Amino acid sequence: MTALRVGIAGLGTVGGGLVKLLTAQRGLLEDRCGRFIEVTAVSARNRGADRGFDIGDATWHDDPVALARDANVDVVCELIGGSDGPALALCEAAIIAGKHLVTANKALLAMHGARLAVLAEEHGVEIRYEAAIAGGIPIVKAMREGLAGNRFTGVFGILNGTCNYILTEMHDAVLAGRTLEFEAVLAEAQELGYAEAEPSTDIDGFDAAHKLAILTSVAFGCPVNFEAIHIEGIRHISAVDIEYAIELGYRVKLLAIARETATGIEQRVHPCMVPARAPIARVDGVNNAIEVQADFVGTTIYEGPGAGEGATSSAVAGDIIDIARGQRTPTFGVPAAKLERRPFAPMDRMVGPYCIRLMLLDEPGVIADIAACLRDQKVSVESMLQRARNPGDAVPVVLTTHEAEEGALRRALEAVDQLDAVLETPRMIRIETI
Amino acid sequence: MTALRVGIAGLGTVGGGLVKLLTAQRGLLEDRCGRFIEVTAVSARNRGADRGFDIGDATWHDDPVALARDANVDVVCELIGGSDGPALALCEAAIIAGKHLVTANKALLAMHGARLAVLAEEHGVEIRYEAAIAGGIPIVKAMREGLAGNRFTGVFGILNGTCNYILTEMHDAVLAGRTLEFEAVLAEAQELGYAEAEPSTDIDGFDAAHKLAILTSVAFGCPVNFEAIHIEGIRHISAVDIEYAIELGYRVKLLAIARETATGIEQRVHPCMVPARAPIARVDGVNNAIEVQADFVGTTIYEGPGAGEGATSSAVAGDIIDIARGQRTPTFGVPAAKLERRPFAPMDRMVGPYCIRLMLLDEPGVIADIAACLRDQKVSVESMLQRARNPGDAVPVVLTTHEAEEGALRRALEAVDQLDAVLETPRMIRIETI
Repeated sequence: MTALRVGIAGLGTVGGGLVKLLTAQRGLLEDRCGRFIEVTAVSARNRGADRGFDIGDATWHDDPVALARDANVDVVCELIGGSDGPALALCEAAIIAGKHLVTANKALLAMHGARLAVLAEEHGVEIRYEAAIAGGIPIVKAMREGLAGNRFTGVFGILNGTCNYILTEMHDAVLAGRTLEFEAVLAEAQELGYAEAEPSTDIDGFDAAHKLAILTSVAFGCPVNFEAIHIEGIRHISAVDIEYAIELGYRVKLLAIARETATGIEQRVHPCMVPARAPIARVDGVNNAIEVQADFVGTTIYEGPGAGEGATSSAVAGDIIDIARGQRTPTFGVPAAKLERRPFAPMDRMVGPYCIRLMLLDEPGVIADIAACLRDQKVSVESMLQRARNPGDAVPVVLTTHEAEEGALRRALEAVDQLDAVLETPRMIRIETI
Repeated sequence: MTALRVGIAGLGTVGGGLVKLLTAQRGLLEDRCGRFIEVTAVSARNRGADRGFDIGDATWHDDPVALARDANVDVVCELIGGSDGPALALCEAAIIAGKHLVTANKALLAMHGARLAVLAEEHGVEIRYEAAIAGGIPIVKAMREGLAGNRFTGVFGILNGTCNYILTEMHDAVLAGRTLEFEAVLAEAQELGYAEAEPSTDIDGFDAAHKLAILTSVAFGCPVNFEAIHIEGIRHISAVDIEYAIELGYRVKLLAIARETATGIEQRVHPCMVPARAPIARVDGVNNAIEVQADFVGTTIYEGPGAGEGATSSAVAGDIIDIARGQRTPTFGVPAAKLERRPFAPMDRMVGPYCIRLMLLDEPGVIADIAACLRDQKVSVESMLQRARNPGDAVPVVLTTHEAEEGALRRALEAVDQLDAVLETPRMIRIETI
């Protein structure tokens, strides 16, 4: 069988890692695929850069679109990044030129995935994107193929290693009796290379949301809908939140959650308190993990490195190998024409328990007033933690509620916020009993 | 595209579950595969049995071999069980008749997998066996496909739910201050249906070993070699072992381990003490989990239900879907001709730390004698736990060692066993610092 000819656009960490992998495993991949995998073309911004690896006889293209049209390329790997611009131009050109597309670009798929899937079918090519979600964990393959005998009911997980690293550090500090606030850990993560200089995409939840949008489409057979995701990041999580979580038997994690509910499909990314014994609670550091719930198989869990040169190039290579073996799978698990628009659940209708943190002036009647605000919205209190302070001092109070509708809870908190004895805007963290 | 025609041999829990799944998901599977999946033939021992599901218009075959030859069947699902006899006859007949084969039969593949893979290639058909290993977890797919860009260095896991259930119960009992011995938990597991009336295959480690033999072949590209596996079960694990493990910061798990070492490929199934913080330590009850170590991706972990109607039929369905989509993958990851016989490491050459439990007469000099036996074999003690008893009483002593060769350790224990003050044969559990 003839070699599979690969064009790589973008020679940064991932592209470079891929070149190294394809070189190191050349013989192994021939055995596994029954044909060689050759890098025949590359494109990057700076031709002269010293990258520490050899691109051999590959044709250099200054313009990624020219790489997409290179007659000597069967598969285009888009490793440029960015939801639009050159990455999008490359992807469209590749598909139109009849090349299979492998990408690590979650932002691009979250924005244009549904349209690109249609285009790919028109041109009879594959779009594969294992590296876009949870790095080296083959979760897309598990859901599109391994679990394809199931109807999915929910998928959730830790999809951003930066946030998980920060929350793990804050947690470990509390256990060690130290107080480490978000800003300090972020600065440290930036020094270690675990967070970007411009960290918003990660810490404000957008990166996890891009990945969730794609997983939702795979799980529920609906077009990617990034706009429908409720997104909150971890900037406002403080050491005291972590302390209370530990005291209550929880851990704070940034989860990305998609699930079927009576009011539609929920898609949300936000910090959660998860039971300390839940498998997802124990996923530490930069690791990612995904829990998939499905009707026949039940719950399966996948954990591994969510980023990094080796993990990401492993995922891209897996996609290339599938193409080399002639595998064909619809982009989001079913043909684009079968993707069904489904109602998305409004966040106000979400139902779950909550943890509320208040800072109060410790005076007679204040707890009764707060209880009344909650009762008026039919929010029922499950537990209350109040630390002793000197009378007249500000005192932190933490409440957990039974299941309540988010809209009702928000209205109750607005009323609480109006009380004179409530000194700071109430903080809320959702509890996920998963 | 025409429907994929499936013949199912064996209508027990798995076969019945598969019929239910294919019926319940008919429309979904058509969307996902681009064609219908039809059950066109079935075979089971008792035609008259009331199975609680409808086989529709499927042709009934009293003889599974006749089902294999049915011209109206594209894929044969072997769900009979047993390493030989009718299951083997069916598999061979199916392959020779040019039908793809899907099986849940680990014993059969552990014994005949290498030969069947050659036969399947000669006849141009697939052998798929996701359900044979770790139930609903798509681990075979992850290793043969998703991680196929990697060279594997190790794979290990909890592959037998019965053993994990028993060890979990014994562990929880200790935590609750009760003593629960192996025999009592086994009896309870049998009542609950978590253990067979004839439990040896599970509790003596053979089931896990069957699965490990297959995973080793996939990981290292060598022919399945069940004979090369060192197998110990969990019968001899007592509550006191679990107690000491907890005290030392470990948990006792039955692990199946395959890894590359300087002396060859290790394949072993035995109880281990694993650090309580290791991900694998927290896999409780009947769940299975597998940790895969590979050069580019690093470590990924897969957890889920290892058995049961839904989980197993999900795995079988995943294989059928792959076939319906036209996917082709070599049985053990590379073509049979590329499977390379590799040296297997002798157990005596295994290197690792150990935990040793002794019952001693508490008299002067006994510890010194034991220390001398260990020193003579260059086994170095890391820690010693001795519980206070009345002088002259029998006293349990637990030692952990630094890394030692298993052969040397065994020789040391033989010498220890000869000492007059050593009242019982020394017990040893390997420590896995994974």
